[in-house]
Amino acid sequence: MIDRGIKVCVLRIGHRPERDKRVTTHVALTARAFGASCFVLGDVEDRSVSESLRKVCERWGCGGFEYVSGVSSVEFVNKWKSLGGSVVHLTMYGLHLDDVINTIKSSSKDLLVIVGASKVPRIFYELADFNVAIGHQPHSEVAALAIFLDRLFEGRELHLIFSDAKYYIEPSVKGKKVVRVE
Amino acid sequence: MIDRGIKVCVLRIGHRPERDKRVTTHVALTARAFGASCFVLGDVEDRSVSESLRKVCERWGCGGFEYVSGVSSVEFVNKWKSLGGSVVHLTMYGLHLDDVINTIKSSSKDLLVIVGASKVPRIFYELADFNVAIGHQPHSEVAALAIFLDRLFEGRELHLIFSDAKYYIEPSVKGKKVVRVE
Repeated sequence: MIDRGIKVCVLRIGHRPERDKRVTTHVALTARAFGASCFVLGDVEDRSVSESLRKVCERWGCGGFEYVSGVSSVEFVNKWKSLGGSVVHLTMYGLHLDDVINTIKSSSKDLLVIVGASKVPRIFYELADFNVAIGHQPHSEVAALAIFLDRLFEGRELHLIFSDAKYYIEPSVKGKKVVRVE
Repeated sequence: MIDRGIKVCVLRIGHRPERDKRVTTHVALTARAFGASCFVLGDVEDRSVSESLRKVCERWGCGGFEYVSGVSSVEFVNKWKSLGGSVVHLTMYGLHLDDVINTIKSSSKDLLVIVGASKVPRIFYELADFNVAIGHQPHSEVAALAIFLDRLFEGRELHLIFSDAKYYIEPSVKGKKVVRVE
């Protein structure tokens, strides 16, 4: 997590177990690595996602990063808003990132970032305070989330380390140097 | 494609059909949407990847964006280098993006960006001119590619439109506005 004084969570909606397990795992790992405080898998459970995240946390640390699953997405969004939080939904149909990122960054509200898998029900467009397009081309919710968090945290997220990591990487020109924390 | 005077291609290695088809499709769509000139699926064919890309091209355009598959990855890299091109391999074990991006940007060589799926054979670490870490945490090759191209093209890629698009999006606060090109 990166301390901006606010909490940033990522909510994955529309996940279809089996079909989406790898992409959703990429979304969850990107949320963790790019400085979010929590990842919420809405409406379903998927052991393969939680297991991948657990293994990464065990080796590379997770600090206070939280994983939640099986909660109703709509209820989660409504509760987030009722507690004073703000909601961003990433969609190619929304307003361009460049036109809204400064407004979003200047807010002191906790931020929920929604990323969809399959077709996103209309209610999420309505519930969102900001429907944000990471460009207006179709690509990937993983790419969209990475770019959004990168703009939000201004590149500092790429230097994130977790206090409870058992291993860390020493940058290497050609090889792999993994060091065990003493 | 974004005209930087050089050609940027993305090579996906280690793709396992079935298991990786969705993530590889996300890599291919990110390559297209983030300004690369071509996407190469190394060593295998996968109709579900080419079919997804074809559908996106048909609707949203692809300009001169090329799709290649089934070529030997090692041979492709060697040929790229023999033609004077430079090779970047994205890996969490490499040098940090922030420490190498300016060197990479200042080069006038065509650029091949390698992204792996499963464990990447050692030879690619050796062949690469730059092994680049998009942070030293495990996350996603889709996120890594997006951030790399975003730094390379300095955010201009998020405004990309394709001259042969049949549709374009009009940014919208709450809804979806898709306009057919006259």
